Amino acid sequence: MVESIRQIANRISQLKIQGARNVAIAAIEALVKLSEETKAENKQEFLDDLFRAQTMLLSSRETEPLMRNAIKWIISQVEKSDGETINVLSKIVESSASQFLKNLEDSKMKIAAIGSKRIKNNSVVLTHCHSSTVIKLLTTANREGKNFEVFCTETRPLFQGRITAKELIKDGIKTTLIVDSAVRSIIKEIDLVIVGSDAITSEGNVINKIGTSTIALIAREARKPFYVVSELLKFDPATICGNYEKIEERDPSEVWKDAPKNLLFRNPAFDITRREFIHGVICEEGIIPPHSIFEVVNRKYEWIFK
Amino acid sequence: MVESIRQIANRISQLKIQGARNVAIAAIEALVKLSEETKAENKQEFLDDLFRAQTMLLSSRETEPLMRNAIKWIISQVEKSDGETINVLSKIVESSASQFLKNLEDSKMKIAAIGSKRIKNNSVVLTHCHSSTVIKLLTTANREGKNFEVFCTETRPLFQGRITAKELIKDGIKTTLIVDSAVRSIIKEIDLVIVGSDAITSEGNVINKIGTSTIALIAREARKPFYVVSELLKFDPATICGNYEKIEERDPSEVWKDAPKNLLFRNPAFDITRREFIHGVICEEGIIPPHSIFEVVNRKYEWIFK
Amino acid sequence: MVESIRQIANRISQLKIQGARNVAIAAIEALVKLSEETKAENKQEFLDDLFRAQTMLLSSRETEPLMRNAIKWIISQVEKSDGETINVLSKIVESSASQFLKNLEDSKMKIAAIGSKRIKNNSVVLTHCHSSTVIKLLTTANREGKNFEVFCTETRPLFQGRITAKELIKDGIKTTLIVDSAVRSIIKEIDLVIVGSDAITSEGNVINKIGTSTIALIAREARKPFYVVSELLKFDPATICGNYEKIEERDPSEVWKDAPKNLLFRNPAFDITRREFIHGVICEEGIIPPHSIFEVVNRKYEWIFK
Amino acid sequence: MVESIRQIANRISQLKIQGARNVAIAAIEALVKLSEETKAENKQEFLDDLFRAQTMLLSSRETEPLMRNAIKWIISQVEKSDGETINVLSKIVESSASQFLKNLEDSKMKIAAIGSKRIKNNSVVLTHCHSSTVIKLLTTANREGKNFEVFCTETRPLFQGRITAKELIKDGIKTTLIVDSAVRSIIKEIDLVIVGSDAITSEGNVINKIGTSTIALIAREARKPFYVVSELLKFDPATICGNYEKIEERDPSEVWKDAPKNLLFRNPAFDITRREFIHGVICEEGIIPPHSIFEVVNRKYEWIFK
Amino acid sequence: MVESIRQIANRISQLKIQGARNVAIAAIEALVKLSEETKAENKQEFLDDLFRAQTMLLSSRETEPLMRNAIKWIISQVEKSDGETINVLSKIVESSASQFLKNLEDSKMKIAAIGSKRIKNNSVVLTHCHSSTVIKLLTTANREGKNFEVFCTETRPLFQGRITAKELIKDGIKTTLIVDSAVRSIIKEIDLVIVGSDAITSEGNVINKIGTSTIALIAREARKPFYVVSELLKFDPATICGNYEKIEERDPSEVWKDAPKNLLFRNPAFDITRREFIHGVICEEGIIPPHSIFEVVNRKYEWIFK
Amino acid sequence: MVESIRQIANRISQLKIQGARNVAIAAIEALVKLSEETKAENKQEFLDDLFRAQTMLLSSRETEPLMRNAIKWIISQVEKSDGETINVLSKIVESSASQFLKNLEDSKMKIAAIGSKRIKNNSVVLTHCHSSTVIKLLTTANREGKNFEVFCTETRPLFQGRITAKELIKDGIKTTLIVDSAVRSIIKEIDLVIVGSDAITSEGNVINKIGTSTIALIAREARKPFYVVSELLKFDPATICGNYEKIEERDPSEVWKDAPKNLLFRNPAFDITRREFIHGVICEEGIIPPHSIFEVVNRKYEWIFK
Repeated sequence: MVESIRQIANRISQLKIQGARNVAIAAIEALVKLSEETKAENKQEFLDDLFRAQTMLLSSRETEPLMRNAIKWIISQVEKSDGETINVLSKIVESSASQFLKNLEDSKMKIAAIGSKRIKNNSVVLTHCHSSTVIKLLTTANREGKNFEVFCTETRPLFQGRITAKELIKDGIKTTLIVDSAVRSIIKEIDLVIVGSDAITSEGNVINKIGTSTIALIAREARKPFYVVSELLKFDPATICGNYEKIEERDPSEVWKDAPKNLLFRNPAFDITRREFIHGVICEEGIIPPHSIFEVVNRKYEWIFK
Repeated sequence: MVESIRQIANRISQLKIQGARNVAIAAIEALVKLSEETKAENKQEFLDDLFRAQTMLLSSRETEPLMRNAIKWIISQVEKSDGETINVLSKIVESSASQFLKNLEDSKMKIAAIGSKRIKNNSVVLTHCHSSTVIKLLTTANREGKNFEVFCTETRPLFQGRITAKELIKDGIKTTLIVDSAVRSIIKEIDLVIVGSDAITSEGNVINKIGTSTIALIAREARKPFYVVSELLKFDPATICGNYEKIEERDPSEVWKDAPKNLLFRNPAFDITRREFIHGVICEEGIIPPHSIFEVVNRKYEWIFK
Repeated sequence: MVESIRQIANRISQLKIQGARNVAIAAIEALVKLSEETKAENKQEFLDDLFRAQTMLLSSRETEPLMRNAIKWIISQVEKSDGETINVLSKIVESSASQFLKNLEDSKMKIAAIGSKRIKNNSVVLTHCHSSTVIKLLTTANREGKNFEVFCTETRPLFQGRITAKELIKDGIKTTLIVDSAVRSIIKEIDLVIVGSDAITSEGNVINKIGTSTIALIAREARKPFYVVSELLKFDPATICGNYEKIEERDPSEVWKDAPKNLLFRNPAFDITRREFIHGVICEEGIIPPHSIFEVVNRKYEWIFK
Repeated sequence: MVESIRQIANRISQLKIQGARNVAIAAIEALVKLSEETKAENKQEFLDDLFRAQTMLLSSRETEPLMRNAIKWIISQVEKSDGETINVLSKIVESSASQFLKNLEDSKMKIAAIGSKRIKNNSVVLTHCHSSTVIKLLTTANREGKNFEVFCTETRPLFQGRITAKELIKDGIKTTLIVDSAVRSIIKEIDLVIVGSDAITSEGNVINKIGTSTIALIAREARKPFYVVSELLKFDPATICGNYEKIEERDPSEVWKDAPKNLLFRNPAFDITRREFIHGVICEEGIIPPHSIFEVVNRKYEWIFK
Repeated sequence: MVESIRQIANRISQLKIQGARNVAIAAIEALVKLSEETKAENKQEFLDDLFRAQTMLLSSRETEPLMRNAIKWIISQVEKSDGETINVLSKIVESSASQFLKNLEDSKMKIAAIGSKRIKNNSVVLTHCHSSTVIKLLTTANREGKNFEVFCTETRPLFQGRITAKELIKDGIKTTLIVDSAVRSIIKEIDLVIVGSDAITSEGNVINKIGTSTIALIAREARKPFYVVSELLKFDPATICGNYEKIEERDPSEVWKDAPKNLLFRNPAFDITRREFIHGVICEEGIIPPHSIFEVVNRKYEWIFK
Repeated sequence: MVESIRQIANRISQLKIQGARNVAIAAIEALVKLSEETKAENKQEFLDDLFRAQTMLLSSRETEPLMRNAIKWIISQVEKSDGETINVLSKIVESSASQFLKNLEDSKMKIAAIGSKRIKNNSVVLTHCHSSTVIKLLTTANREGKNFEVFCTETRPLFQGRITAKELIKDGIKTTLIVDSAVRSIIKEIDLVIVGSDAITSEGNVINKIGTSTIALIAREARKPFYVVSELLKFDPATICGNYEKIEERDPSEVWKDAPKNLLFRNPAFDITRREFIHGVICEEGIIPPHSIFEVVNRKYEWIFK
C-alpha cells in the first residue's frame, strides 16, 4: 500500500521527521514496509510501486541527497537482481535496506574515530546547530579520556544548539553556550571548528544549517581550522548536472511569533559554505580536501552517478 | 543632594536606562538637578559635589564615553568660570548642560542629513540592533521621498532589532527581518550597511552591539560599503592612553532562561569593529575615514583631551 | 598528398582559421583527406604520412591542445587497429575522426545543458570575448524561456565581443556592451561570469583570451561566481611534464595601425587564470572544481597521457 | 556680458574643453573676462553677475571640483574685500584668478619634483590615460638623467593612452603600449604605478578615468605600489556632506559607431579607487596616505569648507 | 640478527642519519641485511623478524612516511609471495628493496626533468634548507644550459642552506645567500620558489623544514609561484585517519649553546604549509595541485592504504 | 674643534655607536661639546661651526631621522635666539640639547606607561630584535605586577634577540627564544606583537630591523595585533618630499664568516612595514593609526617641516 509512503512523506514535509539521517532512515523503512505489503504480481509491478514511492518521497523535501541516494540504491539492487518472485524481490529490498543502514552507521563510527583524533587535550572546539555525527565524534574523544571543552551556538531560529549543549553536558563535557553573533568575539579562544552537513556538491561545497557559512568565514579570517563532518552519501549527484542546491525557506513564525503585520521575513534554513573555507572534510574515507569529493565519490560509490 | 545622583546611577547600572545617548542625557539632567538642590556654600564645595557625582555616575557603567565627556565638559565650564556664587555656578551647569544637549541633537540632525544622501532610490540597506541616529537617518531619507528598503537583524539576545523593525514599519519603510546568522545569505542583495556606535577609539575602531563586527566582516568580503554613524563625542579619550575598551559581559539568563545547571555562558554585550572594515564614519563633521577620527576630534573637541 | 596538410597548417598559422574548436576540426578534416588520398602502400608508410602531417599541423600554432589531442587520438586508433590494408586504415581514420567530432559536439551540448541551469530568471551574466560553447549555453537558456540579460566586453584588440553581442541580440537576448576596463564598475550588477577556454593545465589553470584573468580577479574580489566552460579535451598533457603553456604574442598593428615609429608594443593573445579564481569548470562530466581536472581527465581520457 | 560665460559653459559640456585642469583654467579666464566687461554698477550687482556665472559654469559638468573650488575662491576674495568700486573689484577678480592659477602651477611643479624621486634607474612605471601632471613627473625624472621605462595602456574608449605614448616618446622615454586588459599580464614587470586624478573625496577615495580602479586592484594583488598624483584642490567638499561623486555616462558611439540597433551600452567615463588600494597620494604637501586627505585639506585650504 | 636493526634505529633517532630519503635507504638496507642473516626457519618466523624490525625502525623517528612506506611495501611483497623457503623470501626482500630504491631514484630523475622546465633563462629561484631533489632539479636546468640564479636562505638553526649554497656554487650556478628573515625584502626579485618536502598529507599539506610555511606566505602575498618538489611516496597514510603530522622539537643547544639558565626555548624542526599556499606539487606524476594528492596516490600506489 | 665631531661621526659610521636613540644622544653631546670649545667670534661663525658639524654627522649614517631632527632643532633654537655673544649661544645649545634629551626620555616613559596597559595577565607577547623602549614597556608591565610571558626571536645575523632575552630574564620575566623562521609556528600562542622602530615615514610606514615586516605579515594573517612603539621624533621629513627611506646593506661576514669565495650575499639591515600591517603606533601622543602620523607630527612638532 502506498498509503504508508504518503504518511511518511507527509511527516517529512511537515518537519515531523528532521535531519538528513533521520529522513533517510524513515524513507528506507517505508520502502521496506511497502515491499512487504505490496500487492504487485510481477517484477514490473513491484518496481512500479517502488518508483511511485520514490516520486512521493522525493517530493516531500526539496533537498535530501542522503534519502535520494538511499532510495536509488535500493531500487537499483532490485533492478539488477535476477530474482523474479515478489518474495525474493522483497527480500532484496530488505537486505539492501539494512546493508545501506549498516554502511551509514559504519561511516558514522569511522568518522567519529577519525575526527576524534583531531581533538587533543586542552582543545577548545566550536560547533554549530546539532549533528549526531559531531556529537558522536565529541563523545568518542571524551571516551578516549581527552580533556577538552566545547563552545556551541544557540542556533537561531530553532535553538538546536541547546540540544547539542544538553547532550554534551550529559556526557560530562565542559560546554559553553553563546548567541550566534558572538562567534567572532570568542573565535580567538577556539582551536578548531567542527560542523555537520546536510548535503555536499560536485563543486566541493557544503550545505548546512543557516549560520554555518558565517562561522566558516570568521574561522578563516582568524586562521582557525574549519572541519566538516559528512558521510559521502550526502553527495548530491544533481549538482553535477548544474542544478543549484535548493535552500528551503521556512515559516516566519519560527523567527517571531507575534510580529507586526507589515513586517516581511526571510528565513532560509540552510546556507552554502564554499570549498575554499573548508580545511578538510572528515568522511568515511578519511580527512580529504573538499576539492576532491567528486572524485572520491566516483571511486567509492560509482552507482550514484548512474 | 547626592541621593538623586545615586538613584540615576543605580538605574543606569541596572540597565533601566540604556543606550549611550539616553545614559548621557540622564546623567546630564542629574547634574543639573544636583546643582539646583546643592547645599554647597562656596565654589569649592560646589565643585566637590560635582566631583562626587562624577565618580558615582562613572562607576555605574564600565564604558560610556558620551556620558563621561558630557560630565567632563560641564564641570570644566564651572571650573574655568569667574563666577563665585552658587547661583551663578548653578546657572553655568544649567546652561552648559543645555548647550551640550543641543550640540548632541544638532550632531544627530547633521548626521541624518549627511547619511540620508547615501541612500538612493531602490537602495537596500542593512542595519543591526537599534540606534536612534540610524532611525533618524532612515526616516529622513523616507521624508525626502526616496523609495528604498531595509533589512534588519533580530539582534539576539535582547531582540533590539524588533524595535528597529517596528519603528521603520511605522514610518512606512519596507522592512524585512532576519535572524542574525542569515546576514551572509542575504548580503548580495544589500547595497550598503549602516550601523550605530557606542564608542569610538583613538585607533579608529568602533564599539557597538555584539554582532556588528561579524556583519562588518561579511560586508567587506562581499565588497559592500559598511558605514558607522557616530557623534564624535562618543570618542573615548582613555583609549589614547592605552586602556582597552571594556566589553560588558551580561547575564546568561538573557540568552537562555531555564538552562541546564552545568551549562556555561559567554554573553558579551558589545564587540569591536576595526577601522579597516569601516568604509566611512558618518559624523557631524561629514563622512570621514575612521583612521582620522583622533585628529578630527583633536581639531574639533580639543577639551576632551584635557 | 601532404600538400593539403601544408595548406591547412598555413591557414591556421596565419589566423585564417581561429578558435580552438575550428582549428581542431580543420586539422581533423585534413587528416581524413590525407588518408583518402594517400599513396602509402603499407601500414608503416600510412602511419609515416600521418606522423608527418602531425608534425606539420602541430607547428602551425604554439598551443592548441584540442587539435593535438584530436590528432593523437586518431593516430592511436590506427596504430592499435589490426587492419593492414590502406583501405581499412583509411576507414579507421575516417571513423575515428567522426567519432572525435561527435564526442566534441556531444560535449558542447552537455555543457550547454548543464551550464544553462546556472542561469535563472533575472540573472545578469557577464562574458568576455567570443566562445561558441558559451553562446550555445546562453541560447539554450533562452530557449528554456529564461528571462535574463548579458553584459559583454568589447574584447580589445580584435573586438570579438562585438561578435558575441551580435549573436546574442540575434537570439533575442537583452545585451549590453562595455569597454574591457569598465568591468569593475558594473560587476556589482552581475550575478555570474561565464567564459570559454583555449586550454586547461594539469595545475587546474585555464588559458583564455587576454583579459580573462583580470575579470576573474574582479569577480573574486566582488564575490561573484566565475565559471569556465571547457571541453575536457582542451586539457594540455604537456603541462603535466612541466612545460609552460605558451602565450602567443600577436602583431602590434592589431592594437594601433599607424603608431609612432619608436613606440614599443606588447600584445599577448591569451592569459592564464589560476584555479583559485575559478568557481567551477563546466565540462562534459559536470561542474567540477578546477583542482580535480587532472584526475577527471585521467579517469575519462586516459589515452591522452599515453 | 554673461554670453561669454555661456559659451565657455557650452564648450565644457560638449567636451570641447577636457581635463580637470583645462576646464578650471577656462572657467577662471571666463570669470576674469566677465569682470572686465561687466556692466554692474555696484558691488552687489557685480557679485550677482559672478553668482550667475558660477551657476552656469557649475551646471556644465557634473563633477569638476577643481573648477568649483577655483570659482568659490575667486568669489570669496571679492566678497571679503573692502573694495566697493567696480574697478577695484574687477582687479580683485583678476589678481585672485592669477593667484589661483599660479598656485595650481606651483602645485604641479612640486608634485613633479616629489614624485620623480620615486623613479629610480631601471624602474618600470605603468600609467593609464593621460595626465599632464604625470607627464610632467615623468619628464622631470627623465631630465634628471634617470634611465627608466614606461608602460601605458591605450585607454579605451577614447585612446588617451596614445596621447601619453606620443608625449613620452617625444621626450625620449622608452615606452610600451598595451591594451587595457593586458595589464595583469605585464604587472609583474612593473615597479610602480602612477596615475592622475579627477577628484578626491572626504573618505580618501580617488575618481579617475575608467579602468583606474581595475589597475589599482591588479597592482594590490601583485603587491606593486600604486601612487595617485593629485593637486589637493581637486578635493570635492560636497563629498563631506554625503553627496556621491557623480560618474558621467558618455555617448555609446564612443565605444562602437555602427553598433546593431538593439544593443545596449554602458559607458561610464570614470571610476572610483578606494583608499585601501592607494599606496600614497603625491600632492603639493608631499606623499601622504589617502586616509588623511580630509585633514590635510582642512589644514591647508580651510576656505574650501566655508 | 635484529641487533643490526637496532643500531640503524639508534643512528636514525640520534640524527646521525638525516633526510627523509637517507633514512628510508638506511632502513631498507637494514631490512635486506636482516633477511640475509636471519635464523628464521619458516615463513612465519621470517615475517615475525620483519615485523620486529618494522616496530624498531618506526619508533626511531616520529614521522618518516617514506621509510614507513618502504618497509610496508617490502613486507607486503613477502606476505603475498608464494615462496616458502627462507632463501626465496630473502630474495624477495632483496629484489623488492632494490625495486623500491630504483623507483625512488626514477622519481627523483623524473621530478628533476619536469621541474627544470619551470626554470627559464634569467629566472631567479629561491630555495630553503637543503633538498637533494631540489639540487638535482637545479643542476639539471644548469646542464640544459639555462642561465639562471638562485637565492638560498641560511636556514637556522642548523645552517643547511650553506650546504645548498656550496653545492650550487660547485655546479657553477650563481648563488646568493640571505638570512631567513630577509626573504620578504628580496621576494620581488624572485621569479619562483622551489622547496623540498619531508611528508605530504591527505589534506594536501606539506611538512618541511621550519621556515618553509613563512616563505610560502610571503610568496603568496607577493604573487610568486611556490612549488613543492616531492616523491609521492612521502605521502603519510596515517593522516587520512585523522592523525596529526608530528612535528619534532629538537634540542635548544642547536639554537644557542651557552644560553642563560632560565631562558626557555622552542625549537620545532618542521612546519606545515597548507595546500592553498602551494602553486603546484612537482612529483613523478607531473605537476599537480596539492588538493589532488590523495587521489593521485590512490591511483598510483593503492597498496599504501592497505 | 670640529675634530671631536669627526670622531663621533666615525664611531657612528663604524657601528661602534648603534641604535637610533644612542646615535642621537652621541650627536647631541658632540654638538654641546663643540659649542663649549668653539673658537667662533660671532653668531655667524658659531652657526657655521654648527652647520659643518651637521653635515659631518649626517653623512655618518644613511638614515637616522632622530639624530637629524635633534640637530635641526638645536640649530633652529640658536638661529631664532636674540643672543649674539658666543657665551649666550653656547648656553642655548646646551639648554636646547638637554631639553631635547628630556623630551626624548619623557616620550619613552609615556610610551612605556601607555603600552604596558595593553599587556594583561596571561598575555603572551612576541618581540623582535632589541629595543630599549620595548624593554622599558615590558619591565613597566612587570613592575605593575602583571603576570605575562614573552617570546623573542634570536634576530639574525647579529643575534640582538639574545640581548633582549637576557634583559627580560634579568627582570624576572618568563622568556622563550626561537629562531626567526619559527615565528609562524608559534604565532597562534601569541596575544600581541610589540616591536620598536628606527624611522617612520609620511606614508605611515615603519622602518625597523630586518625581519620585522615578515612578522607583521604573519601577525596579520593570524589576526594578531601588531603594535609599533615609536617616539614621533623618529619621523623622517625627507619622506614627505618623495625620498625613499634608505636601507643599509651590511657586511656579508655578519652572515657567514668563512663563506666560499664565489658566494654572493644580500644583507639588508632593515625592512619596511607598511601601514596596513600595523594595528597601532604607540607614541607619546597615545595609540594612533599609522595613517595619521604625518598629521600628528604636523600638529605637535611643526618645526620638523621647516
